[in-house]
Amino acid sequence: MKIRAAVAWEAKKPLVIEDVELEGPKKGEVLLKMVATGVCHTDAYTLSGADPEGIFPSILGHEGGAVVMEVGEGVTSVAVGDHVIPLYTPECGKCKFCTSGKTNLCQAIRATQGKGLMPDGTSRFSKNGKPIYHYMGTSTFAEYTVLPEIAVAKINKAAPLDKVCLLGCGVTTGLGAVFNTAKVEPGSTVAVFGLGGIGLSVIQGAVIAKAERIIAVDINESKFEFARQLGATDCVNPKKHDAPIQNVIVDMTDGGVDYSFECVGNVELMRSALECCHKGWGESIIIGVAGAGQEIATRPFQLVTGRVWRGTAFGGVKGRSELPGYVDMYMRKEINVDDMVTFNLPFEKINEAFDLMHEGKSIRSVISLS
Amino acid sequence: MKIRAAVAWEAKKPLVIEDVELEGPKKGEVLLKMVATGVCHTDAYTLSGADPEGIFPSILGHEGGAVVMEVGEGVTSVAVGDHVIPLYTPECGKCKFCTSGKTNLCQAIRATQGKGLMPDGTSRFSKNGKPIYHYMGTSTFAEYTVLPEIAVAKINKAAPLDKVCLLGCGVTTGLGAVFNTAKVEPGSTVAVFGLGGIGLSVIQGAVIAKAERIIAVDINESKFEFARQLGATDCVNPKKHDAPIQNVIVDMTDGGVDYSFECVGNVELMRSALECCHKGWGESIIIGVAGAGQEIATRPFQLVTGRVWRGTAFGGVKGRSELPGYVDMYMRKEINVDDMVTFNLPFEKINEAFDLMHEGKSIRSVISLS
Repeated sequence: MKIRAAVAWEAKKPLVIEDVELEGPKKGEVLLKMVATGVCHTDAYTLSGADPEGIFPSILGHEGGAVVMEVGEGVTSVAVGDHVIPLYTPECGKCKFCTSGKTNLCQAIRATQGKGLMPDGTSRFSKNGKPIYHYMGTSTFAEYTVLPEIAVAKINKAAPLDKVCLLGCGVTTGLGAVFNTAKVEPGSTVAVFGLGGIGLSVIQGAVIAKAERIIAVDINESKFEFARQLGATDCVNPKKHDAPIQNVIVDMTDGGVDYSFECVGNVELMRSALECCHKGWGESIIIGVAGAGQEIATRPFQLVTGRVWRGTAFGGVKGRSELPGYVDMYMRKEINVDDMVTFNLPFEKINEAFDLMHEGKSIRSVISLS
Repeated sequence: MKIRAAVAWEAKKPLVIEDVELEGPKKGEVLLKMVATGVCHTDAYTLSGADPEGIFPSILGHEGGAVVMEVGEGVTSVAVGDHVIPLYTPECGKCKFCTSGKTNLCQAIRATQGKGLMPDGTSRFSKNGKPIYHYMGTSTFAEYTVLPEIAVAKINKAAPLDKVCLLGCGVTTGLGAVFNTAKVEPGSTVAVFGLGGIGLSVIQGAVIAKAERIIAVDINESKFEFARQLGATDCVNPKKHDAPIQNVIVDMTDGGVDYSFECVGNVELMRSALECCHKGWGESIIIGVAGAGQEIATRPFQLVTGRVWRGTAFGGVKGRSELPGYVDMYMRKEINVDDMVTFNLPFEKINEAFDLMHEGKSIRSVISLS
């Protein structure tokens, strides 16, 4: 079928909205009509050419809200008309990782997904007979897309797709990092580095987990007001202090925080986040994605004296079994997603969403596709 | 009182056994007669001059087995005649750390201990009126020593002090790292880097924890036989492989180990130990003490994809409440400590113990003091 999609023909160039060919779902796959999609920093990172795994031409996008239009042979877990969120971390329920009970990093289709292909090793998108590649297994910057059944989470039909699409990445990542990875306990002290969509979601998660003190850290003070509205108790601008930010936080907290979260992707900040943790038990969670080849470092004494260094991908959330519950949390108004949508744009203006992000004007822009 | 002690007058010089003055116990302190002491790499590290916290002149030693000879005012938890193991990590039971339930790193006397002093800010050792400093709060290289009550663990009187003295450091550190820090589960796969006293104790702990596969790693293959006797299922010499040792282990284990332990103090090996862990859940525990100023590094992707980096000091063991149970474990023959004592030496030959260690001939030498 002919569909409209925003094609990333090459790195560093604007997306081009045009007609492309989409093949229908094969066995175990579903055809989705995309209703809305968020534009995330990871899309921009890949488009910038800095992502060593970036493949072109491709159709970017991974924060989608969609409706099932057609199901391939053998699909049983979703039906035509279901509302779903595409999952860049699928959940097959059968692989060593899914059955471990210890991780959400399903590896069932990892190899082909990393190559921009469907599990059968081919692409469903093409133009003039030449393949256009999938991206993160989701490719939500298109009116229609095809995904494996194991890579869609069926959600409450009453949920507004132009809001809960953000649970396809940033919001869930932040909440899950608090609930699944750090397992923040009531009364905890928490530091959040970076107040984008993920950092703000960490703050909301920390509030739900009943953290007593939530220290928000950013060099852009315009973000502090919303962070406070969501529940941050302290806001700190590292540029306003001569001492390293970890020392500032250790001093503020009588020895350091119980949990810290790096939501930027800056390896120096990852070190600060670890070192602002309390001796004996503080745990730091890396969420941000660092540039290719960059490394984190610290003195091993930091760990020997009881700090723990962790990371998380998609907040440790198992997409099909746990993400629907996060949507329900939104429906019960326990989390504020609406105010994270700073811009609503029609599909034709998708490149503006990247500009707004680069200019620091948006938390998230959401693109309406239909 | 006049006692005989092995004094470290300065770095890089042999210890000198001579008479020194020891003041009796003050309030909350106890006088111990040292029966036996192990000689550990940390003693050698400090004597080498490389330890930035090393203070001279001092009386080294921290793996002791002793008898209480006198108690100071207010001492209630031990009595004259009790057998005890000195604790370089005390347990006051009252500080923020002890009451956290999350760490064994009691900070009650940390400041003075780090300066080679008793909690009142003075030393009990002297020579010709000039102070000789304490070391790690224990100073077991002396016929008698004085310790705060909170820094001695009362143990089973039937336990041979010339064996269980090793539970004052290496053995307990290795076992505790498995039980308290990693919390190894039955069926786990484990890698142990470095087969000294700590690494061998990690192997024993892993056997007790019912690990299914225990991979012992060392460049000295003469250590493999004893490692196998204790329960190692595989022994690997990194020098026999062209690929980095982490890749070798990942290949051996279908993706990596569940838990790894660095028992050497080499920052490159710490990285290998992390990176040989299984994606999604593998945890690496740093036990070895790195050289001053050295740093560990890795790509954050290692953590974002589910590996966890931890460290441990004294195996996370709370000395007064948990160490007596470890001694009982020895008495029930659940752990082999006897065969770790490769040499028994009289006090006069204590410098030979350092030579044997440097030559790689000993797991542990135990010095008899009385």
